[in-house]
Amino acid sequence: MSATNGRLAIVGLGPGDAAYLCERARPALAAAEVVIAYAPYCDRVGALLPGIPVEPWPIGAEAERAAGAAARARAGASVAVVSSGDPGVYGMAGLCLEALYELGWDGLRDPEVEIVPGVTAALAAASRLGAPLAVDFACISLSDLLVPWELIERRLEAIGAGDLAVALYNPRSRARPHALDRALTVLRAHRDPATPAALVHDACRPGERVEICELDRLRSEEASMDTLVVIGCSSTRRLGRHLVTLRPRHSRGGGS
Amino acid sequence: MSATNGRLAIVGLGPGDAAYLCERARPALAAAEVVIAYAPYCDRVGALLPGIPVEPWPIGAEAERAAGAAARARAGASVAVVSSGDPGVYGMAGLCLEALYELGWDGLRDPEVEIVPGVTAALAAASRLGAPLAVDFACISLSDLLVPWELIERRLEAIGAGDLAVALYNPRSRARPHALDRALTVLRAHRDPATPAALVHDACRPGERVEICELDRLRSEEASMDTLVVIGCSSTRRLGRHLVTLRPRHSRGGGS
Repeated sequence: MSATNGRLAIVGLGPGDAAYLCERARPALAAAEVVIAYAPYCDRVGALLPGIPVEPWPIGAEAERAAGAAARARAGASVAVVSSGDPGVYGMAGLCLEALYELGWDGLRDPEVEIVPGVTAALAAASRLGAPLAVDFACISLSDLLVPWELIERRLEAIGAGDLAVALYNPRSRARPHALDRALTVLRAHRDPATPAALVHDACRPGERVEICELDRLRSEEASMDTLVVIGCSSTRRLGRHLVTLRPRHSRGGGS
Repeated sequence: MSATNGRLAIVGLGPGDAAYLCERARPALAAAEVVIAYAPYCDRVGALLPGIPVEPWPIGAEAERAAGAAARARAGASVAVVSSGDPGVYGMAGLCLEALYELGWDGLRDPEVEIVPGVTAALAAASRLGAPLAVDFACISLSDLLVPWELIERRLEAIGAGDLAVALYNPRSRARPHALDRALTVLRAHRDPATPAALVHDACRPGERVEICELDRLRSEEASMDTLVVIGCSSTRRLGRHLVTLRPRHSRGGGS
């Protein structure tokens, strides 16, 4: 049997700069007895709420991190788990919910769960570029650590065929130096070589740097795990220092 | 010639509840001499910053709203334009940048422009459902007011072929009662009838209501312009009261 009154908050930290944190994030964290974080995010949490107990966890232990948080919250503790960006996009929300249901959770109480959404990297990078994801778009991770490359490539093919603007997460790492090149090969087969594209490094956090170029000239070797790559669609235009995706029929279309 | 020191802030209001506003949004609005808003959002702005001058604009006048804001900011005023959700996703950012460049803007100064990103409806709805957009996903608007239906359908076909989870914006209105049915017909041709799906009405604002169902049983007549529809992919699972999209290869994959 679980004790009562446990609480699990799964909180998005946004892209990095506290300016882009949801107003709900700080109080949701402050109510926790302990914050469970991937080690490099501990300083970020400590800067938001000086003195809050933060438990650093190594990379690669995401399922264990979720299981530990779930067990403690189910036993009555008030626990927060943080994710960079939005916890529901390549983040910890799914793993934490899975872990809770494996413990017999009813989905409502013991613990109460709160998911605080956040500005995911695609939206952060887009805000620095202008409005390249203004109409329809997709988000794809190029990491084949946990998703087979065949499926990633199938999705890129679909995005090419559907003329969708796309935000590419995890474009390149030391262990996967060719992921972005492989993705670009797929997309270039569908797009005009002059399609606007961009690399946004460290969007909305210290060290931010934006490079706008044409799809054919995108230099994959500039990308790292801190880069979000945006590839426009046929209605994406470069306007001076910005990228904007237009409504395909009218250039001065709606928005609210 | 433009006067100096103009400023244009393009600010995302998030899904509605101020809890999900970026911390930067209030100060960015407070620095404006006037806030330009689609009329129904004026109360929301007034509640955030009592006393701030808000200028209500009718729907359908988005390009005029952007042009007016751009002209006043270029002439030296400090103006804010708001969008629901994220201004870069079906919002005002692109129109405002277009309007500025048409006035000869250099992309940097006179006015200075700031885009404050926000939690777009897909992320807000996903946070209420669990983590249905946890891996790769697309956002598609079903409004053919400004995008030809043929392109919307081509994009839905691509999403079906690519086995991508999808968030459907503007699924249905009185003027377009069949948009969601037409979209579901396309997606159902590609997906298992038992694929988890959901309607989220008024996500993260008063009146919020969540309906989870199987794709085959999704009742399109329940949807309105205040609904965000989520259709899972082949790795999306219903767990009790939640939807979670798993990494296709491993059910306990990464996240950070």
